[in-house]
Amino acid sequence: MNIDRNAPVGVFDSGVGGLTVAREIMRNLPSEKIVYFGDTARVPYGNKSRDTVLRFSRQIIRFLKSQGVKAIVTACNTASAFALDEIRQEEEIPILGVIEPGARVAAEKTRNKKVGVIGTVGTVGSGIHEAYLKKFDPSVTVFGKACPLFVPLVEEGWLHDPVTVEVAGRYLQELREKEIDTLILGCTHYPLIRSTIADIMGDGVQLVNPAYETALELLHLLKEKNLLSSGTEKEEFPYRFYVSDLADKFKDFANSILPYDVAVTRKIDIENY
Amino acid sequence: MNIDRNAPVGVFDSGVGGLTVAREIMRNLPSEKIVYFGDTARVPYGNKSRDTVLRFSRQIIRFLKSQGVKAIVTACNTASAFALDEIRQEEEIPILGVIEPGARVAAEKTRNKKVGVIGTVGTVGSGIHEAYLKKFDPSVTVFGKACPLFVPLVEEGWLHDPVTVEVAGRYLQELREKEIDTLILGCTHYPLIRSTIADIMGDGVQLVNPAYETALELLHLLKEKNLLSSGTEKEEFPYRFYVSDLADKFKDFANSILPYDVAVTRKIDIENY
Repeated sequence: MNIDRNAPVGVFDSGVGGLTVAREIMRNLPSEKIVYFGDTARVPYGNKSRDTVLRFSRQIIRFLKSQGVKAIVTACNTASAFALDEIRQEEEIPILGVIEPGARVAAEKTRNKKVGVIGTVGTVGSGIHEAYLKKFDPSVTVFGKACPLFVPLVEEGWLHDPVTVEVAGRYLQELREKEIDTLILGCTHYPLIRSTIADIMGDGVQLVNPAYETALELLHLLKEKNLLSSGTEKEEFPYRFYVSDLADKFKDFANSILPYDVAVTRKIDIENY
Repeated sequence: MNIDRNAPVGVFDSGVGGLTVAREIMRNLPSEKIVYFGDTARVPYGNKSRDTVLRFSRQIIRFLKSQGVKAIVTACNTASAFALDEIRQEEEIPILGVIEPGARVAAEKTRNKKVGVIGTVGTVGSGIHEAYLKKFDPSVTVFGKACPLFVPLVEEGWLHDPVTVEVAGRYLQELREKEIDTLILGCTHYPLIRSTIADIMGDGVQLVNPAYETALELLHLLKEKNLLSSGTEKEEFPYRFYVSDLADKFKDFANSILPYDVAVTRKIDIENY
């Protein structure tokens, strides 16, 4: 397969959360163009079944390929957990998830071999982080904890708020008692309340942000496959945003977290792909 | 059109919330059979656009008609707000929403003509309660407040919890300052935290539960159209439950709130309708 190194990278998520991954790619691979798709009509994926998430992911990949992307980042933890293995077998284009990069770094960082994972019910219940962590280091013990209120709290904008601190304190208590020394932020929204989580867990616990680790892994992968953008081709709009619903609301959220002005967001009918 | 009076009533919602409406129908119309559909693959509707909610509602109505229902209750506030008017023009079968019955009773109950409405962002933003309230009594002033954390708090099971009390106190403060004397629980999940809401609002504020009012309106409508079940036809499973995803999880929630054992829940592919 002949791939254009100056083609954009495709990034998708169930909604706005994956923008934290897009943000890390913008910061760490500034020459790369991005086509982002947020499945805002069908968000969230965290409470949906494997079959449904796999079907949604296949539609999105068909859409991103129609946009001529050279590689795809599944920025959604649930989609990475439920769909990535199968889709990689179906596609020639390189596809990265957010689970493996986070798990690899956590396995490297932990000293006491006790690693915590927080995420949606779907992600934590899938046990996917544990599977990867044990592949990298079989001696690691993994403690998972679903935190279903974190996403709505972040989307409410209560990032530094006593309610969020109380909810986080309650969710994380169990992991503190397990004396983990490394914690994977296993949901794309969680980096936005990273400081609250860090305060509760204390200095002895290292937080792993898979958004950042995935951007580094993308850099490595593109370099290895000789697909890094030459950076010579200037473009007025290097970042293109597509959603399946309510483009304006998405744009507001995007503008609040990206170091970049999102001028245009287009709504597409994802069920046609 | 010739309708069988012993046919079931169709009830649908974006997910589990509409079960509070099904529950009121079971309590107040015990001879009626029910076919319930919860769109658990695409929940929630509250943050989706009018077009998307209309499209989803049309698919569900096609499904319910395929099950031979004699009338349909749109138990979802967002679907009632966004889709009901248009769908009623397209269909011969009687279709009820949850907005109108709640608004009618609130307009009757209020003395100081200040009515509050709480619900999802979509429902409150639609202004649909205000439109109905003003139809019933133009002198009413309506104060709306979106409470996006209530649904995840209820689904987390934190019904009587300090966090829920704190969140509710914050959301409702604004309505207390407006000195409303009547409050519409404009989301199907909210009756499950009714006592917390009642405590915060105080004795001077009457709560209107549209689930109950809708069941009474259904009773009235079926009587008027001579469609009340004769109640002679016994059936082993008078209540049938369908979902678009994760049937087991739905069953657990249903069994926790219904005065009835939900033995079987079937998953269907709603996008085929």
